[in-house]
Amino acid sequence: MRKFEDVAVPEVAMRRILEAARLAPSSSNLQCWEVYWARDKGRREAFNEACLSQPAASTAAELVFFVSRPDLWRRNVEKLAAEFAGGAGASYYADVLPGIMASFSEAELSEWAVKSCALAAAQFMLAVGAEGLDSCPMEGLDPDRVRELLGLPKEAGIAMAVAVGKGRPEGVYGPRFRFPSESQVFEV
Amino acid sequence: MRKFEDVAVPEVAMRRILEAARLAPSSSNLQCWEVYWARDKGRREAFNEACLSQPAASTAAELVFFVSRPDLWRRNVEKLAAEFAGGAGASYYADVLPGIMASFSEAELSEWAVKSCALAAAQFMLAVGAEGLDSCPMEGLDPDRVRELLGLPKEAGIAMAVAVGKGRPEGVYGPRFRFPSESQVFEV
Repeated sequence: MRKFEDVAVPEVAMRRILEAARLAPSSSNLQCWEVYWARDKGRREAFNEACLSQPAASTAAELVFFVSRPDLWRRNVEKLAAEFAGGAGASYYADVLPGIMASFSEAELSEWAVKSCALAAAQFMLAVGAEGLDSCPMEGLDPDRVRELLGLPKEAGIAMAVAVGKGRPEGVYGPRFRFPSESQVFEV
Repeated sequence: MRKFEDVAVPEVAMRRILEAARLAPSSSNLQCWEVYWARDKGRREAFNEACLSQPAASTAAELVFFVSRPDLWRRNVEKLAAEFAGGAGASYYADVLPGIMASFSEAELSEWAVKSCALAAAQFMLAVGAEGLDSCPMEGLDPDRVRELLGLPKEAGIAMAVAVGKGRPEGVYGPRFRFPSESQVFEV
């Protein structure tokens, strides 16, 4: 959906949608992702521009950014180790996981984090649909500018922006297309 | 869910679930991902072992592998350019997209492909739930062995395995935990 009606999204709906994202599966429960909800009306135009002024961004009632945070894995391992101390999983989080994570290269960490971030973004978009609303994921954006606007370090990956609102009929530009099942699904 | 009942998953349910994955959002509709459904009973044990013999793999009725294929972007750009020729989006696919994709480094391509792959995996897992079934995503696997078993080149990323079946009560090992909303969602 690339064009939205000038209609507000109820805050309670946005909070349910964000909660669906928070509960997404996450590798070792590390949740090295964040979502930034661009609510401040005074800053919204800057965020739209960082999305290259795509109509999906500039016409949407709400705009969020899914951000992967490979740089936060140590902090989150420590949080999980503290949370699970003395219970099921304690030794995994305290003894095993730090070694696994430390063995990743920078590129591997970055790819690992974006994977869980995308799982959350997908749950977010399906929750948007469940509210009777429409969304548009956008990877075409200026990641340096988004990081600057959000005050994030260079290690933070701007995985995608997602526009949310009530879609317009003309917001679907052409026929929707997917490759046939035979080119995506293989039985082995 | 880490342990499953010894109960079959109806083939028709698996096909609906795989179809939900196929329709996932995909960056520029390039769909540089594949899913391999390990159906051959004679090879299943080898796939379980490639998942490090985790109970989630060895007890599950069905097992699939989500694979990112950054190496297939040129082929898929050409398929889209052919599909959209003469219609809306024709010049994007024929003239703009090849240049965007060619500008990506190998690491960027890899991360880009796994992102769309994870969107499909998330839709897959939510579709599993919609069928009244349970799933377990597994990133703890031997990617070289999975590539070998699937006959895939080294550029193929084994994003995750997903086990599917009817979960057992004891298959949830401990309390489910997510960081609070304040550490994941930021209003800016």
